[in-house]
Amino acid sequence: MLDWHGKGLSVMEMSHRSDDYVAIAEKAEQDLRDLLSVPSNYKVLFLQGGASQQFAEIPLNLLPETGTADYVETGIWSKKAIEEARRFGNINVAASAKPFDYLAIPGQNDWNLTKNAAYVHYASNETIGGLQFDWVPETGDVPLVVDMSSDILSRPIDVSQYGLIYAGAQKNIGPSGLVVVIVREDLLGRARSSCPTMLDYKVSADNGSMYNTPATYSWYLSGLVFEWLKEQGGVEAMEQRNRAKKERLYGFIDASEFYTNPISVNARSWMNVPFRLADERLDKAFLAGADARGLLNLKGHRSVGGMRASIYNALGLDAVEALVGYMAEFEKEHA
Amino acid sequence: MLDWHGKGLSVMEMSHRSDDYVAIAEKAEQDLRDLLSVPSNYKVLFLQGGASQQFAEIPLNLLPETGTADYVETGIWSKKAIEEARRFGNINVAASAKPFDYLAIPGQNDWNLTKNAAYVHYASNETIGGLQFDWVPETGDVPLVVDMSSDILSRPIDVSQYGLIYAGAQKNIGPSGLVVVIVREDLLGRARSSCPTMLDYKVSADNGSMYNTPATYSWYLSGLVFEWLKEQGGVEAMEQRNRAKKERLYGFIDASEFYTNPISVNARSWMNVPFRLADERLDKAFLAGADARGLLNLKGHRSVGGMRASIYNALGLDAVEALVGYMAEFEKEHA
Repeated sequence: MLDWHGKGLSVMEMSHRSDDYVAIAEKAEQDLRDLLSVPSNYKVLFLQGGASQQFAEIPLNLLPETGTADYVETGIWSKKAIEEARRFGNINVAASAKPFDYLAIPGQNDWNLTKNAAYVHYASNETIGGLQFDWVPETGDVPLVVDMSSDILSRPIDVSQYGLIYAGAQKNIGPSGLVVVIVREDLLGRARSSCPTMLDYKVSADNGSMYNTPATYSWYLSGLVFEWLKEQGGVEAMEQRNRAKKERLYGFIDASEFYTNPISVNARSWMNVPFRLADERLDKAFLAGADARGLLNLKGHRSVGGMRASIYNALGLDAVEALVGYMAEFEKEHA
Repeated sequence: MLDWHGKGLSVMEMSHRSDDYVAIAEKAEQDLRDLLSVPSNYKVLFLQGGASQQFAEIPLNLLPETGTADYVETGIWSKKAIEEARRFGNINVAASAKPFDYLAIPGQNDWNLTKNAAYVHYASNETIGGLQFDWVPETGDVPLVVDMSSDILSRPIDVSQYGLIYAGAQKNIGPSGLVVVIVREDLLGRARSSCPTMLDYKVSADNGSMYNTPATYSWYLSGLVFEWLKEQGGVEAMEQRNRAKKERLYGFIDASEFYTNPISVNARSWMNVPFRLADERLDKAFLAGADARGLLNLKGHRSVGGMRASIYNALGLDAVEALVGYMAEFEKEHA
């Protein structure tokens, strides 16, 4: 951390234009490209501001002032994306999980897509609701834009199905304060004149994400995660690992009469598993016992309550086994 | 780094809404407030995108579409601020160091200020040119906005003289990817309807800079720097330390016939000391010898060439002595 490869300084202290740092940054990008088999006609950008800034950046870059963009609403994050995009133009909510109480995703046959939409936007995994697409929408020539903040790198994807993929780093990539954007080159250069320079994808792409000083240390740490992922066997190995984890946890919940997850089976998230106890007055005791065992951060999001186990790439099956073990023990004591 | 206070996790892994992290974030803010004696009617924000994003954020928040803002141009960074602001409204360059070849700062008597300007913007220190204000402009009721990216915390300031202070973290605060904004409360809530939510100061202020996940680890590391600064004796002690450093270095350069810094004495930067060798064909040998002695990053910015010693807070007088020692030795060999 303090002395990078015997050079006498930390990566944090390097100029972002130095040969050493540029090599670090380029290797991180290449490793990510390898992991996701990113085609050569896509740019990979390392930006700031999180997914929430992308909610504005996407329409500012891709939605002409007189155009329409289609959005699919499946939970809190896709809803936030819609609210922000509405500030910049005409947004059509082509489909919503609301009629299903956000427990299922409407099939594409029921979507009301706009002809010649500027793009179609959806969130592949809703972190808070625990609702995940197990399929990719078909939008023909209309670019598909996806918020993959919480499931990128969790299993293989076909990047060529998308016009733009974005992901806040803090789930499966690295520290918060970094957001990765993978964008098809033909979508660059369309930003509105009112788009701040720092939010113009083409400017970022033309400058290798170094129009100004990037989040150098976060980029470096993300590169270490990409290296680790490659060592583990890449996203194919992650898919196996994550499948085993989610099958163990949902399997246990479904077999129990004390814990519930009401989401329809094919829309259940592999990354975020919300669950409820039979009696919510036991929530506090459950969380305290979990904390005492080092099972941290199980409290559900303040907007929904209950519990939520986030089982991102970094967690092994052993961690899920430890959680299931504790859940079984707690059930025995309190059921 | 990996186990914060025995809690079994890194600060990087904490939820930004957890009690532990909120306490870290609040302490960092309070320490910064203490260091700069920030009055209670100012908000302190920890944002992303660097100073370059502020170049857009400032007019989007403070410049009405029909108003005018005054800018003072003293080098590359203030020029960039002007170029970006022009995309959002009417900008008057009230003064420029260009007629002085950027070697001196025009006195305020020669500034052409706009009556009822939305604000007056300047850069207190030009990192690349090495030009620094040793005085604060007087703008009466017009808010004074300052880019302090490269000299914040280097010596005491009177925050109440400013409407808004901003500073990219990567010089005197912490890792890149974080920008600190100190803004007077009455300037909040003026953002244009076309301002992205993430760029609206009021939204950031109302949410304690946590409208979305902030750059948590960078914020934490900045807090460690603030703690260190307090232990050192605060900005008063930094002023003494920095004064000694710059006097030693400029004193040596001025006494030498081999090295030159042409900037007028009262506008010389305490933080960035550009200098030239008598013969620029020796630049390469000078840099190689410096690198071999662990004197790193002395190459001037690619836009200006020559040498530049950045002697931020973190550097002690011993580092300047080591540099001066090497410069003397090199001069003896090559003069």
